[in-house]
Amino acid sequence: MRDFTFQNGTKILFGRAAEERVGAETAPLAATVLLHYGGGSVKRSGLYDRIAASLADAAVDVVELGGVQPNPRLSLVERGIELGRRERIGLVLAVGGGSVIDSAKAIALGIPASCGVWDFFEGISKPERALPVGVVLTLPAAGSETSPVSVITNEEGLYKRGFRNGLLRPRFALLNPELTFSLPADQTRFGAVDMLAHVMERYFTNEADVELTDRLCEATMKTIIANLPRALARPDDYAARAELMWASTIAHNDLLDTGREGDWASHRIEHELSALYDVAHGAGLAVVFPAWMDHVVGHDLRRFAQFAHRVWDVEPDFFDMERTAREGIARFRAFLRSCGLATTLKELSIGDDRFDEMARKAVEKGPVGTFVPLGEEDVRAVLERCR
Amino acid sequence: MRDFTFQNGTKILFGRAAEERVGAETAPLAATVLLHYGGGSVKRSGLYDRIAASLADAAVDVVELGGVQPNPRLSLVERGIELGRRERIGLVLAVGGGSVIDSAKAIALGIPASCGVWDFFEGISKPERALPVGVVLTLPAAGSETSPVSVITNEEGLYKRGFRNGLLRPRFALLNPELTFSLPADQTRFGAVDMLAHVMERYFTNEADVELTDRLCEATMKTIIANLPRALARPDDYAARAELMWASTIAHNDLLDTGREGDWASHRIEHELSALYDVAHGAGLAVVFPAWMDHVVGHDLRRFAQFAHRVWDVEPDFFDMERTAREGIARFRAFLRSCGLATTLKELSIGDDRFDEMARKAVEKGPVGTFVPLGEEDVRAVLERCR
Repeated sequence: MRDFTFQNGTKILFGRAAEERVGAETAPLAATVLLHYGGGSVKRSGLYDRIAASLADAAVDVVELGGVQPNPRLSLVERGIELGRRERIGLVLAVGGGSVIDSAKAIALGIPASCGVWDFFEGISKPERALPVGVVLTLPAAGSETSPVSVITNEEGLYKRGFRNGLLRPRFALLNPELTFSLPADQTRFGAVDMLAHVMERYFTNEADVELTDRLCEATMKTIIANLPRALARPDDYAARAELMWASTIAHNDLLDTGREGDWASHRIEHELSALYDVAHGAGLAVVFPAWMDHVVGHDLRRFAQFAHRVWDVEPDFFDMERTAREGIARFRAFLRSCGLATTLKELSIGDDRFDEMARKAVEKGPVGTFVPLGEEDVRAVLERCR
Repeated sequence: MRDFTFQNGTKILFGRAAEERVGAETAPLAATVLLHYGGGSVKRSGLYDRIAASLADAAVDVVELGGVQPNPRLSLVERGIELGRRERIGLVLAVGGGSVIDSAKAIALGIPASCGVWDFFEGISKPERALPVGVVLTLPAAGSETSPVSVITNEEGLYKRGFRNGLLRPRFALLNPELTFSLPADQTRFGAVDMLAHVMERYFTNEADVELTDRLCEATMKTIIANLPRALARPDDYAARAELMWASTIAHNDLLDTGREGDWASHRIEHELSALYDVAHGAGLAVVFPAWMDHVVGHDLRRFAQFAHRVWDVEPDFFDMERTAREGIARFRAFLRSCGLATTLKELSIGDDRFDEMARKAVEKGPVGTFVPLGEEDVRAVLERCR
């Protein structure tokens, strides 16, 4: 186990009607908020009205800015900063999933800054403060509701950059599983793959003596695996939705990281995929992650055998550890398919004509991953396995 | 899963030499600290000197108050409050285990208060603020390093009272597993039983649909069970000590509580035991907890069978769930014995002559426990099973 620092002070309010506590949580922090959201579903569902009523009850003034898209854009962030400064807002309230939260974090960072907010993402400047961020979560997946990370795309040149700083952790996150009943099936399954991938990126490590976090990771993976099919079969299954929602936060709140180093190569490779093709992040991960496993399984058969046995209930074959290890990957892929997820690029209508380009771009800043650092040839080989 | 609120902002610094960061963590919070500890071992081991040097390097002034005993006393807390006010301290630094931390929390609560600190423990007054508390942990067991609870004994009348308030959560906790290498074997085993009990109190719940927290509990229990024998066999086994230390915090930082209600009858019954006899808390729990299980196992055979299978690797007997359930309890007791713990009162030289008194006092404020609420007769029956 390696040395670590861990702190996550986000206040979680979880359960039915959690969003109706938004006024009470916001009032001590700010007199005026920027209410930030994506498309119109927040208004159509009545959620917007319930939030507005709660804020009004608590005498909090509201300025609104909608229109956040997947892969949130710098241009909208800059509009939010300008609007927030003009209206002297004291908190940015994100109502949505990871994209809305990431956009809200960037706005909160930019408002009190003396430089342009993109300078932080480029590493040119370091922030000293940020406005507080609050969250009403509608899509469990990215884990941004308690993470200190924001990922923003700068349309000028299509740069996608992540920025990590403790100042970005939301002050509160309101998690009501009922808000996820109406999610389209694809968002439910892509979200679950994203959570699962967040845990797996941490699970595949070279660090020895990480028993507690191994087991906490396995606990979280088994819960996601058990509850995704339930939520798909019955979208208003509160228990299944609640397990998935809490798991999405646990998967990415940095607890499962403690004492170990994550890999993150699959995420990097998937980012290249979604940069070139119109693929949802979770959909891309369902193709890339098992292919990555096939490529690196030989690096640590014991860890893959443990994954197979403890997460996928594979009976260990003590005379053939590789067979045990590979059976775990096979069951992972079979699980994804049983949940209606594609596991090949072909099914996503993506050919092999840009493999070279993606491999080159993935390793632009050096090899990707830490479990097995992958160079350009390796990334290309992983992509080959995705066909 | 029931609705819940969760927030735990304690900053954890974990690893070798963590205590040497005490100056850097303290300086932004206070110019003068009250360094609070127990007996002389902190000085003999050189830990005191390392902490003093780190604080001096950071230009933090130190006022010291040692002498905390197990079951920390109100009289010492009151001396700490007086001293802290006189010296205008800004933070209370606890160097020790649960007793020292609980005492430090009470001092931090009392210094800015306009009433007597015991009023908070009696529920007569509510605090509006407290000084920050920092921790250098030397004994992993009680989980007080990130909990919002302090338990203090008022010598006048021997009242033992716990007080829970978010103001009491330590601001930082420095966890160096090496500091536990020199613990006596009994403190190691009693500490591990205390952690295990913290998880089990939460595990045995009537709440349905708590899969994620069930599994996180099981992960934590399995880790404690695997690593206690290793730490006993080789006290300087860093990996085993690290797993136990991190598990002690996870067991009691309120994460494993989320969405469920704990039982806590075994803790209540054990408190009566340690109030009358000179028994360490963990030693008492090793006797009471399995006896409590024997008494309540019929209330939910499925939960006990799950415990047996997932935590103790009992092969399920699908034709006899009670047999599966009871085998789990038997393995728990056998594990305790294999680690050198007594599981009967007889081994602790405690007779049955005060069972009536303990049973009466345990239920003074009503039945104990929520999984199965126990009245006076039930508590007596549990004690009978402890013989």
